[in-house]
Amino acid sequence: MIGCMGRWEPNGRGRLAQAALDLYVERGFDQTTVAEIAERAGLTERTFFRHYADKREVLFDGSAMLQQLMVDAAAAAPDDASPLEATAAALVAVGEMFDERREFARRRHSVIVANPELQERELIKLARLTEAIAATLRERGVGEPAASLTAQAGIGVFHVSFQRWVAPGETRRIGELMREGVEELRAVMR
Amino acid sequence: MIGCMGRWEPNGRGRLAQAALDLYVERGFDQTTVAEIAERAGLTERTFFRHYADKREVLFDGSAMLQQLMVDAAAAAPDDASPLEATAAALVAVGEMFDERREFARRRHSVIVANPELQERELIKLARLTEAIAATLRERGVGEPAASLTAQAGIGVFHVSFQRWVAPGETRRIGELMREGVEELRAVMR
Repeated sequence: MIGCMGRWEPNGRGRLAQAALDLYVERGFDQTTVAEIAERAGLTERTFFRHYADKREVLFDGSAMLQQLMVDAAAAAPDDASPLEATAAALVAVGEMFDERREFARRRHSVIVANPELQERELIKLARLTEAIAATLRERGVGEPAASLTAQAGIGVFHVSFQRWVAPGETRRIGELMREGVEELRAVMR
Repeated sequence: MIGCMGRWEPNGRGRLAQAALDLYVERGFDQTTVAEIAERAGLTERTFFRHYADKREVLFDGSAMLQQLMVDAAAAAPDDASPLEATAAALVAVGEMFDERREFARRRHSVIVANPELQERELIKLARLTEAIAATLRERGVGEPAASLTAQAGIGVFHVSFQRWVAPGETRRIGELMREGVEELRAVMR
């Protein structure tokens, strides 16, 4: 859902990521080459490949960190937290990281929705996140199918809230949208 | 989740689908060629391509029908049905079609889980199903984010129940597993 560029660095990763995203927005993902990204960043292709395996990875760089953050938060929930509460803790944990970067996320999102292959990659990322949360819940002693169902519902809330958060004109924080999402889903399930 | 071969036909589509699945299970999807499928079915490659665009399509042939079945059932739910009830109607509608074909579904599933590319295709199918159900709920007057959240939760139940249904030794019908899934999720959300 969001890529992590880390801090802007005068001569590295952050500059490449910024240049890549600028070009993807301007020209489209398919129409952008690694050579052009490197040139825009004032760096070499060689430097690009020291940081990223390919031009797609620039957009999914933060996936592993996002997953770790969510899993850690769910695992760290109090022992007596319910499966839903542990999953909600995972959602809340990513809120701050996201809110600092809404404009980046919006631009990244516009690139992804324009490209079926990137959309597929995004779906795979969400499926992995779901499986990671389900595994964490099982480690907390939650049985099946409750663990998988809760993880599916939680990542469903995450996905829907994210889409709202990047929508034009939306100013509410993602944490608020996710809390509202959980409440809406609870109401629907009653 | 399930491919539709239609009825077995002496000289057509069904024979090709059966031959393809047999070969995918025996040799692996990547190791099977269209020429081999046609040969096993006693037909020509030309006939294969009259029925299917490629060897992957054999496995996803039923996707459009599955989606239509679910959408129709959700749309046909009584006017006063809640979003959850309309979504549950979509799940129940596919139950009978599935239960007649568990062995086919198990074999198909074993091919899919062994191949990352096919898994991706399956995720895309589920994402499309989710979007189709959400759109149907919106047409029924359900607002956002309730429509998307309910569709996500419903397809989450479908996905988790399907995985249980194809597990070795599982004998319960998919409708029963889906009903149990909805109840589990309701309990989790309370």
